[in-house]
Amino acid sequence: MVMAATLAFAVSLGSMRLMPETQAPRRVWVPFGRSAKDLPPGLVADVFTGVDIEAPGGVPDSIDEVELFVLPYSFTNWHPELMARMPRLQVVQTLTAGYEHVLPYLPEGVTLCNARGLHDASTAELALTLTLSALRGIPRYVRQQDRNDWAPAYQDDDAVVDDALADRTVLIVGHGSIGSAIERRLAGFEVDILRVARTAREGVHAIGDIDALLPRADVVIVVVPATDATRGLVDEAFLARMKDGALLVNVARGVVVRTDALQAECASGRLRAALDVTDPEPLPPDHPLWQTPNVLITPHVGGASTAFLPRALKVIDDQLRRFAAGEELANVVVP
Amino acid sequence: MVMAATLAFAVSLGSMRLMPETQAPRRVWVPFGRSAKDLPPGLVADVFTGVDIEAPGGVPDSIDEVELFVLPYSFTNWHPELMARMPRLQVVQTLTAGYEHVLPYLPEGVTLCNARGLHDASTAELALTLTLSALRGIPRYVRQQDRNDWAPAYQDDDAVVDDALADRTVLIVGHGSIGSAIERRLAGFEVDILRVARTAREGVHAIGDIDALLPRADVVIVVVPATDATRGLVDEAFLARMKDGALLVNVARGVVVRTDALQAECASGRLRAALDVTDPEPLPPDHPLWQTPNVLITPHVGGASTAFLPRALKVIDDQLRRFAAGEELANVVVP
Repeated sequence: MVMAATLAFAVSLGSMRLMPETQAPRRVWVPFGRSAKDLPPGLVADVFTGVDIEAPGGVPDSIDEVELFVLPYSFTNWHPELMARMPRLQVVQTLTAGYEHVLPYLPEGVTLCNARGLHDASTAELALTLTLSALRGIPRYVRQQDRNDWAPAYQDDDAVVDDALADRTVLIVGHGSIGSAIERRLAGFEVDILRVARTAREGVHAIGDIDALLPRADVVIVVVPATDATRGLVDEAFLARMKDGALLVNVARGVVVRTDALQAECASGRLRAALDVTDPEPLPPDHPLWQTPNVLITPHVGGASTAFLPRALKVIDDQLRRFAAGEELANVVVP
Repeated sequence: MVMAATLAFAVSLGSMRLMPETQAPRRVWVPFGRSAKDLPPGLVADVFTGVDIEAPGGVPDSIDEVELFVLPYSFTNWHPELMARMPRLQVVQTLTAGYEHVLPYLPEGVTLCNARGLHDASTAELALTLTLSALRGIPRYVRQQDRNDWAPAYQDDDAVVDDALADRTVLIVGHGSIGSAIERRLAGFEVDILRVARTAREGVHAIGDIDALLPRADVVIVVVPATDATRGLVDEAFLARMKDGALLVNVARGVVVRTDALQAECASGRLRAALDVTDPEPLPPDHPLWQTPNVLITPHVGGASTAFLPRALKVIDDQLRRFAAGEELANVVVP
């Protein structure tokens, strides 16, 4: 298999030099060396990571040939401005599900494809990790470990114990691809699940019903996209409707939650929060949220795990195969 | 419903005074006030928590009448020696799955019932909590939060990221009631699962095959009972067969793992561990395991969560109903 694939790559490289212009292989840019191997027939690839583009070779010479551009995943090195310098560009592929940040740079007539589903596993898994860690007291036990302190959270009369996830009601706010992945992971935990999405459907409530649902939930997991409709969704009134002692988990975007309102509810001890995203983000070193009691913070690592690369390679491989074969592309968001 | 139940309770209390000796209600001791309510007809209950038995009323006056004794859950206040002072004792019910600690005190001819299944939800949930926390870097992020430090574990080239559970192989060592509960919770996480138990059965390997299985596992979750056969099971040779970077999770008993051997493998950085139980236990303040890198410790709180009480009440209610109705008892371990 490896030999055959290497051969195909060699043949396509060779054909670039030998074939007439009209049958020349089509140029693609990919962010990983592994995506440039085992290419479908008819394609040649350059690796563009977006890192250090001022260095020699930082921008491949083939910029005027590239027809399909896979944007690097990093938000600091993705260089969307290069699209304007790609006269033959036909397709842009993101490695994010969100794509609103790409639209301002997308040349007219170029097809945009997103990576719906790519981050489901990693982000849903972090949502469970944050939920379980916060409920079962992991931050407290880590700090006790740092003090060599064996202090279980129960007394002899079993009056004081950590919260279990079992028997709780979990409200998933946003029931798209990641929300469904969270629900699959919750399946074995003996919980009741409530679902809210933009529009109602079987088993899923409309966002308009949320006022009635919030008082029923012990855990509220927010996983909506950041849009004008969701900005500030979790405000003072939203939080006030949550149960005493309930846990808010945000794996969506920081701007969906009003930070000041959440901080007040956690500082008073009425609510708890586990946040992978914040507003502002990164959270500045002097921000009071860091040391607010009942708050667990991870630095936006929902999608950043070992689950990313194999799924990213699969998204890219599949799209390149479709592109080379002239098939319909996957996940077209701007035709 | 509540009124009817209260009435039944009152009737049974009343009948104790009015009915002739031969038809007197049968006396039971339970550790929770809630278990003494809504009793089946024909039973009367005293609440014995085991706390402060030297105080007046600490041992109920009915000790010479009690026929069924539910041992308090706590290991410090369970007072098994009282069994010898119960001339009419017929049944002892534990709130633990293990019962080897009760056997030396069990009067001849008394039936012993354990609480198989009672701690499944809480312990299995902690196994997942420890696994996910260790893999996704929660202890590191908690310590970063204490320093107001936003530092995700990835670089711009996506070379360094936290481990996901997704795509991993998990080996469950011990596949009884809690092992199965762990597996149900793992179901949605995109993992491969290997199972080992004392004897082989469909889908479950015999413990004798473990040498061949250990090198395949990224996560090894130990949940065997503590017996002569499992004491020291996880020794130097066991650990040496584990993959580089693999995670050992112990929610069984501390003595199943050779602490020195595990500590050496974690100190070198070759293995990682997440432990709810240790040997010795409690872990003394000056024990080097506390500050060994790559080790996460919780202080034996697997069964101690809000999941305990409702399940304990259910076990007791069910057994009292069977006892009152003369039905076969549940979970008889010594007939």
